[in-house]
Amino acid sequence: VPSHPDSRPLSPDRSIVDAHTFFFPEAWPDLDLKFGGPPWPWLRRTGPDTGTLMLGNQPFQPCTASLWDMARRTADMDAQSVGHQVLCAHPLLLLAERPPAQALFCAKVYNDAALKACEADKARFTPLAQVPLQDADLACRELERALQGGHKGVQIANHVGGRDLDDPGLITFLQHCDSLGAPVYVMPWSDLGGQRLRRHLLDWSIGLPAEIHLSIAAMILGGAFEALPKSLRLCFASGGGAFPYMLGRLEQAWRRRDVARGRAPRPPGAYLDRFCVDADVGDARALRLLVDVMGPERILLGSGYPSPLAEQPVGGLVREAAFLDEAARTAILQGNARAFLEPSARTVST
Amino acid sequence: VPSHPDSRPLSPDRSIVDAHTFFFPEAWPDLDLKFGGPPWPWLRRTGPDTGTLMLGNQPFQPCTASLWDMARRTADMDAQSVGHQVLCAHPLLLLAERPPAQALFCAKVYNDAALKACEADKARFTPLAQVPLQDADLACRELERALQGGHKGVQIANHVGGRDLDDPGLITFLQHCDSLGAPVYVMPWSDLGGQRLRRHLLDWSIGLPAEIHLSIAAMILGGAFEALPKSLRLCFASGGGAFPYMLGRLEQAWRRRDVARGRAPRPPGAYLDRFCVDADVGDARALRLLVDVMGPERILLGSGYPSPLAEQPVGGLVREAAFLDEAARTAILQGNARAFLEPSARTVST
Repeated sequence: VPSHPDSRPLSPDRSIVDAHTFFFPEAWPDLDLKFGGPPWPWLRRTGPDTGTLMLGNQPFQPCTASLWDMARRTADMDAQSVGHQVLCAHPLLLLAERPPAQALFCAKVYNDAALKACEADKARFTPLAQVPLQDADLACRELERALQGGHKGVQIANHVGGRDLDDPGLITFLQHCDSLGAPVYVMPWSDLGGQRLRRHLLDWSIGLPAEIHLSIAAMILGGAFEALPKSLRLCFASGGGAFPYMLGRLEQAWRRRDVARGRAPRPPGAYLDRFCVDADVGDARALRLLVDVMGPERILLGSGYPSPLAEQPVGGLVREAAFLDEAARTAILQGNARAFLEPSARTVST
Repeated sequence: VPSHPDSRPLSPDRSIVDAHTFFFPEAWPDLDLKFGGPPWPWLRRTGPDTGTLMLGNQPFQPCTASLWDMARRTADMDAQSVGHQVLCAHPLLLLAERPPAQALFCAKVYNDAALKACEADKARFTPLAQVPLQDADLACRELERALQGGHKGVQIANHVGGRDLDDPGLITFLQHCDSLGAPVYVMPWSDLGGQRLRRHLLDWSIGLPAEIHLSIAAMILGGAFEALPKSLRLCFASGGGAFPYMLGRLEQAWRRRDVARGRAPRPPGAYLDRFCVDADVGDARALRLLVDVMGPERILLGSGYPSPLAEQPVGGLVREAAFLDEAARTAILQGNARAFLEPSARTVST
């Protein structure tokens, strides 16, 4: 992914493009009242600048006003040298297990709210849409509607129940994303491990990286990259999860056992040029391995701001990594995200 | 773990200590006939030098005579410069989900057979025992019996159903291991992911590393290392799974969220001196990260020989790693395993 032809250096205080931040609309319908069923996400305000993300009557995560207040968000960006943010639905809104019509309703509410929030300052905010991924047709239609409104791509859950991203319906959706020129950010949702991960935030520290590891492996071995066009722009959150560290293990299995090859005619490492990952690994040694495996041209900054566990300050790990040269550092902090968002970057320079 | 005082350099053709190899007794009772219930493991011979490990009437894994034939094993060792092997039960024999009395019966059969197999050449083979981990009392008794017979330690499954290694019963067992001076090798058994991992050997390439990641995190955050004596010798298979790469993520959660601290008064990285991992990572870049995080003194060679996905040749990755100096290389290939097996190494030199 070459850097965008318009990506002249920004002023030092506005240099970072953060390709993965979360947004939750301040105005949100009472879905328990509307739909019933399993508990629904909502935002409980606890003070002028604080709140709690709720699932029914259970607290899910503390939050601050940055999650819904664009002025607070802008102030944070200025303080952390972030010039541009991509807004995605908070993961609680992925809702991939709900009835499709209910998920579609929520996606529409979210998409309209996110669009409105970003319209105030398009130079600094880009919205990605939410879709009812459990129904490929509905998802394609809502993506079209969202793009027409001004969304620039889509964030999806990494799986729908037992279906991973090599599932035929999900491949159909990804093909449609490509045909519409919409980049796809893949966010994990942890269903692994059951009760064993329901303590100490292990769903976050172990479940999410394992989910993304599984998603990438499922796409490779399930033949998704063979079926999908090379022009599809795809980025996996959480630094690709455990995949970059465990690539040798996948390669070992592919080379030694027929049953481990699935529908991948080439070894897993041959598919690294088909996707990006973000730099959200939380450790300089891990970042070095990530760069070794993926190459700096396949990594972009995506912080998960303003989640309680998002990197602070945003981009600090990449800025301080002594093993990156300036070209690699700039690509990760800025150029790669621009190219992910703007496909024209790839052809204008020819 | 300082190297063993007796670990003078071995001759070049017998230099490696492989601390984790698998054994399956050639003579094995018909457990389906004896116990019934869910399918039991057994060995189907398919030729003079080949076989299939079976679960009931389903093939589980192809195997060669090296799995049960000590002469074949010795020939392989000579060919691959392995001087010494530690024998553990094939993972199919972990049987942590079975009724305790049935698991005890199998452990006794295995332990007696492994002891007999190793007795022919004690200079080259060390057996670790199998125990019915689902019942701490039975496990302690069988470990005592096995050690009296000549076993040098124990291999355990990384969990028993929903109980991870910080479970009180499992801590009791680990305390007993320490009091008996028995080193403990932790082998993962994948229960994560359900059907989503039941293809392309993803249980092996994704499930096992996630299991070990979970085991180490559960011991740290569940307070197991606070409860256990520092003298306990513990080694995690599969290179510590995804843990070394994801340590930054665990640390980030521990530092930022009270609910992620569990019973660990210190950050996760403060517990690295309480266990070893093996070098079974399958990739030079991953091995470098492993050494960066754990230090060469906490890594030993454990290949999983003669499984179809074991490293070939054994120790190749460590031998060829340009970033290791000779002291680190020798420690990983030899000294650390000796110290793991022989506690006297730590005190003799004072």
